[in-house]
Amino acid sequence: MPSFERRIPEGDDRERMICADCGHIDYQNPKVVVGTVVVSENKILMCRRAIEPRRGFWTLPAGYLELGETLEEGAAREAMEEATARISIDGILGVFSVARIGQVQVIFRGRFADPGAPAFAAGIESLDVALFPWEHIPWDDIAFPTVHWALNAWNACRSAPLGLPAGNPASDPRGVHRMVPSPSAGPVP
Amino acid sequence: MPSFERRIPEGDDRERMICADCGHIDYQNPKVVVGTVVVSENKILMCRRAIEPRRGFWTLPAGYLELGETLEEGAAREAMEEATARISIDGILGVFSVARIGQVQVIFRGRFADPGAPAFAAGIESLDVALFPWEHIPWDDIAFPTVHWALNAWNACRSAPLGLPAGNPASDPRGVHRMVPSPSAGPVP
Repeated sequence: MPSFERRIPEGDDRERMICADCGHIDYQNPKVVVGTVVVSENKILMCRRAIEPRRGFWTLPAGYLELGETLEEGAAREAMEEATARISIDGILGVFSVARIGQVQVIFRGRFADPGAPAFAAGIESLDVALFPWEHIPWDDIAFPTVHWALNAWNACRSAPLGLPAGNPASDPRGVHRMVPSPSAGPVP
Repeated sequence: MPSFERRIPEGDDRERMICADCGHIDYQNPKVVVGTVVVSENKILMCRRAIEPRRGFWTLPAGYLELGETLEEGAAREAMEEATARISIDGILGVFSVARIGQVQVIFRGRFADPGAPAFAAGIESLDVALFPWEHIPWDDIAFPTVHWALNAWNACRSAPLGLPAGNPASDPRGVHRMVPSPSAGPVP
């Protein structure tokens, strides 16, 4: 293992991981997750996770933004990787902070890029992929709180023009609550 | 120096920096910059940079989001660090991708939190801090393209309700252009 130690570098004001051998500072900053509520005739594309965390639970096509990508490019790549779906992006539905795990999530509204019947299939990180009408979304088996937030943001505007993006809900303004299994189905208020 | 090598980890699809000694994977993802167009009576708070890159040029109070912070908390911290200003956040003005340098920027519109005359002063990373009316913004000495984009986004709405955040301009949809010294003053169209 590398021999990192935690201390405040000169000129900084918070602790960083610093290599005891060479002095390399391993700056750790929040990561960006990009994802999309992909909609076809008011049905939403969701993926059942094949990987931990939350294997077997339903999520939106989303994942870490990579170096060299724009937000829109990252969101489109994730839709292809997780749902084999070619999408076009409408605009931003939500910008969320998940301070507990050091994430910022930017969630878009999008559509299938190709005309005709929506083309999608489970990618390697998905057990299953499906289009759900709002009332059949598997509310009891949602992977993460931000999936609720993004779905609610979509439901608030549906196909109307996008406005100010949704932020964290008042019930979790800093994004520090874990997902709790809900005894009754339905979106988080 | 640590002996990192660049290769594709098992199960991944792109090269990462991997420690040749211990196998530690150093995932490098884009970083989030948060900042604010802080406005007082239609004048905008700007900071002249005391540090590289772009020392001596004017920017908005902005910087890297830290682990454990929400976007709003990070933006408020940067306003305090760079301009000794206590601010309140209105909402999101712009969400920009700067693919060239692996950044996502979330820029808010904000106000001074305290009533009375705006209180601000140069923080340690600023040579100078000032409130500029739009027509006196130092257009020839702006530090970064995204400062132009954010200022233009503010000018497009001023004190009107915020709507869909601005994205990258059509002239640089991926955020890959460097700042070019402009021979004539004025905002980037």
